[in-house]
Amino acid sequence: MSTPTADIGLIGLAVMGENLVLNMEDHGFTVAVYNRTTSRVDEFLADRAKGKKIIGCHSIEKLVASLKSPRKIMIMVKAGAAVDAVIDQLVPHLEKGDILIDGGNTHYPDTTRRTRALKEKGLQFIGTGVSGGEEGALKGPSIMPGGDPEAWPPVKPIFQSIAAKVDDGTPCCDWVGPEGAGHYVKMVHNGIEYGDMQLICEAYHLLHSLLGFNAEALHEVFDRWNSGPLDSYLIEITRDIFGYRDPETGKPMVDLILDTAGQKGTGKWTVVSSADLGVPLTLIAEAVYARCLSALKDERVRASKILKGPADESFSGNIQQFVDDVEMALYASKIMSYAQGFALMNAMAKESGWTIDNGKVALMWRGGCIIRSAFLGKIKEAFDRTPDLDNLMLDPYFHHEIERAQNGWRRVVSVAVSRGIPVPAMSSALAYYDGYRSDRLPTNLLQAQRDYFGAHTYERIDRSRGEFFHTNWTGRGGTTASTTYNA
Amino acid sequence: MSTPTADIGLIGLAVMGENLVLNMEDHGFTVAVYNRTTSRVDEFLADRAKGKKIIGCHSIEKLVASLKSPRKIMIMVKAGAAVDAVIDQLVPHLEKGDILIDGGNTHYPDTTRRTRALKEKGLQFIGTGVSGGEEGALKGPSIMPGGDPEAWPPVKPIFQSIAAKVDDGTPCCDWVGPEGAGHYVKMVHNGIEYGDMQLICEAYHLLHSLLGFNAEALHEVFDRWNSGPLDSYLIEITRDIFGYRDPETGKPMVDLILDTAGQKGTGKWTVVSSADLGVPLTLIAEAVYARCLSALKDERVRASKILKGPADESFSGNIQQFVDDVEMALYASKIMSYAQGFALMNAMAKESGWTIDNGKVALMWRGGCIIRSAFLGKIKEAFDRTPDLDNLMLDPYFHHEIERAQNGWRRVVSVAVSRGIPVPAMSSALAYYDGYRSDRLPTNLLQAQRDYFGAHTYERIDRSRGEFFHTNWTGRGGTTASTTYNA
Repeated sequence: MSTPTADIGLIGLAVMGENLVLNMEDHGFTVAVYNRTTSRVDEFLADRAKGKKIIGCHSIEKLVASLKSPRKIMIMVKAGAAVDAVIDQLVPHLEKGDILIDGGNTHYPDTTRRTRALKEKGLQFIGTGVSGGEEGALKGPSIMPGGDPEAWPPVKPIFQSIAAKVDDGTPCCDWVGPEGAGHYVKMVHNGIEYGDMQLICEAYHLLHSLLGFNAEALHEVFDRWNSGPLDSYLIEITRDIFGYRDPETGKPMVDLILDTAGQKGTGKWTVVSSADLGVPLTLIAEAVYARCLSALKDERVRASKILKGPADESFSGNIQQFVDDVEMALYASKIMSYAQGFALMNAMAKESGWTIDNGKVALMWRGGCIIRSAFLGKIKEAFDRTPDLDNLMLDPYFHHEIERAQNGWRRVVSVAVSRGIPVPAMSSALAYYDGYRSDRLPTNLLQAQRDYFGAHTYERIDRSRGEFFHTNWTGRGGTTASTTYNA
Repeated sequence: MSTPTADIGLIGLAVMGENLVLNMEDHGFTVAVYNRTTSRVDEFLADRAKGKKIIGCHSIEKLVASLKSPRKIMIMVKAGAAVDAVIDQLVPHLEKGDILIDGGNTHYPDTTRRTRALKEKGLQFIGTGVSGGEEGALKGPSIMPGGDPEAWPPVKPIFQSIAAKVDDGTPCCDWVGPEGAGHYVKMVHNGIEYGDMQLICEAYHLLHSLLGFNAEALHEVFDRWNSGPLDSYLIEITRDIFGYRDPETGKPMVDLILDTAGQKGTGKWTVVSSADLGVPLTLIAEAVYARCLSALKDERVRASKILKGPADESFSGNIQQFVDDVEMALYASKIMSYAQGFALMNAMAKESGWTIDNGKVALMWRGGCIIRSAFLGKIKEAFDRTPDLDNLMLDPYFHHEIERAQNGWRRVVSVAVSRGIPVPAMSSALAYYDGYRSDRLPTNLLQAQRDYFGAHTYERIDRSRGEFFHTNWTGRGGTTASTTYNA
């Protein structure tokens, strides 16, 4: 058998896998590839991989034999059981110190489990988020690796060279933390992506349905927004989408697309994690639910014939001012969403005993990934100023930005609410802002209610924290505080 | 050994357990009781149970020996491992056909598991929701049993006699469904309870912080609301709370209570289930998150010194009109919350192969439980009219009520938004309404974005559903649709 020559192996030649391979090869690495349906390997070799330092393999054995030691094998298959199946196939052929890397959208507890299980076998495991879609994978994705820290040094040169770079050349890839930390951060990234996309949709809805802007006008608005504080990949592609016409009909393509989206996966996991950790993540939750609601297309069509809107659904006012207000509403809401997302990562790090450096995360997201933006550079600066910042809003730059945006933001939500345009994410973001800046919320009443019907006890503002009181509000019932009934 | 004389046994003498025992005894049943800390048994017998047909037991054996066959034993201990521990202690002493009943706030998958495991041992298991707090347990709770249907006939006479009754004498207790169905319905009940309480708090916040109403004025408002469409237990106790003064200071007690609440438990589970099933449950989610936010008291106090509100935080307008508007905002939002909750139960029944009769559920909640209200009678009528109603809003009564309420609702949210009062549940409810009645949402843009960066494909409005299209928006990248990257 010939001497192994490949620097890294990759299993799973769907679009992300293919593009990562081409990206690695483009950076000087020799890559061995394998796919369960082996014809896919041949097609790839005959087409996009032709003439490149890419070794096609028709078996796991061949793939393993092609790799220099310690072997590094990246798995790009569907998250879940398929990853375990590939790992099980690989393990008998590997040697101590070999490294497996799962680059799929894996749920972080699976990564924690696999890191531990492979460690016991003397193997090293990395679970890494990879974001950037097809194009990112090819030209420079954001890469968020976590798992066994011993695996990082050998993998680092490959990942950092294929990753996106920010202006000063820093790669959008760094070690996130142990166990499932990399996939956790990727999950939150995707949750934030849900939020960003929903906010853009709400802005679109306002401009399109309320102001009557067509695709051409929307193209111009998003083009302008892309040179302001919203400057980002998602705003840029939104601009491009509005500019794209269906070759068949000549109509704007966006107008021909059905308004239903799926939501299974990372967005949902982010919401579940926030509920588990008790961190308000209202904006992403609303974004996930908005997708659920979009999926009820037939029900909505029926409901639209029955349920009436407000008497006045028209817009009156200065259109240019309103467009600027919508920009501010989107911007301020986006600050809330990132504030919530970073607060969630703080809570998870604390809960898991992981150390997650929020500044590093912001830098990894700064380029390459779907949510990349100038905005993330500002977030990086905020965490540079205050590494243990509790909430992004408390950073001087961001709280001044909110102040600048808030009047427009409030006007937009107010108009939307009175004119019947749903803005669940923008209004939820505003409620979060107004709640977070309240030294006194009405939860005192809620505590009184819980004590009234369930003897849950409460604390008092005129006594020390940690002292609990129960009032027998009715003069009836027992004096025992509740233990089994916890609403 | 003497002949067993007890009709039912109960384990766990915290306040709910004690009160259920007294309620059963009051309805002619002889109850055997046991508590792990046996001094509690003696205290109970010497105090509230004195002179009643209540048999105190200092051991599991004694309890089991006191019971007529088939034995019925209700477990009222902390949900989770404690329930399994009690079951494990009991099982060796039981005979085929004996019935165990868990009346705690158990997570429904545990009930499904226990029902199956005990069935294999020839034992019958019921997991039942019990709502009504201390006083309900004593005077007539709402009881929502599910599990092994064979266990229901022997338990039915006891449960239906101790349950609350609606005006015509119908008990607020009926068989919900198999496995965890009873605890699932109780979980949704608690989620709705979270929503109701949050909505009341938002109404309070508006009247107190924006209009400056003190406890006395609030007492009057809630008293008036309690004779309108909001007529309910929670509005009633809220009225009473505003009327209660701290005996020490003479101040309204509500003003002295700290504004932080916990949220671990059923509210969170409801949100997780809605995310799993893809059902928009925005209002309850906002209510859960509002509790999370309330818990960040120190952070909020700090933030309140940094983050500014709108320039104008004062109210201008007709105060009486606004109070009526707030009533309508609360009412319409409440309709949304119940619409979402019942839609969730529909989805779960479908997913699990359970049959849940929404009309029956509404009747069970009509009395006894924390969310009991005249409103639930109207919901019962809606499901009587249309048993397979997809969404409560589509019922003629409710959509007319929404129409009646919507102008006030919109004015309230609009004012709250512009004046800086957080109304996360009311605004989320409104966004849900406006989204649900939209035949076209902006999700077409979201689908275009997903196809742009991830080749996720989309459907077209001018083609059949189920046909998926991909556009190569940039003219770059592969032609393969995404399989591994699912955002």
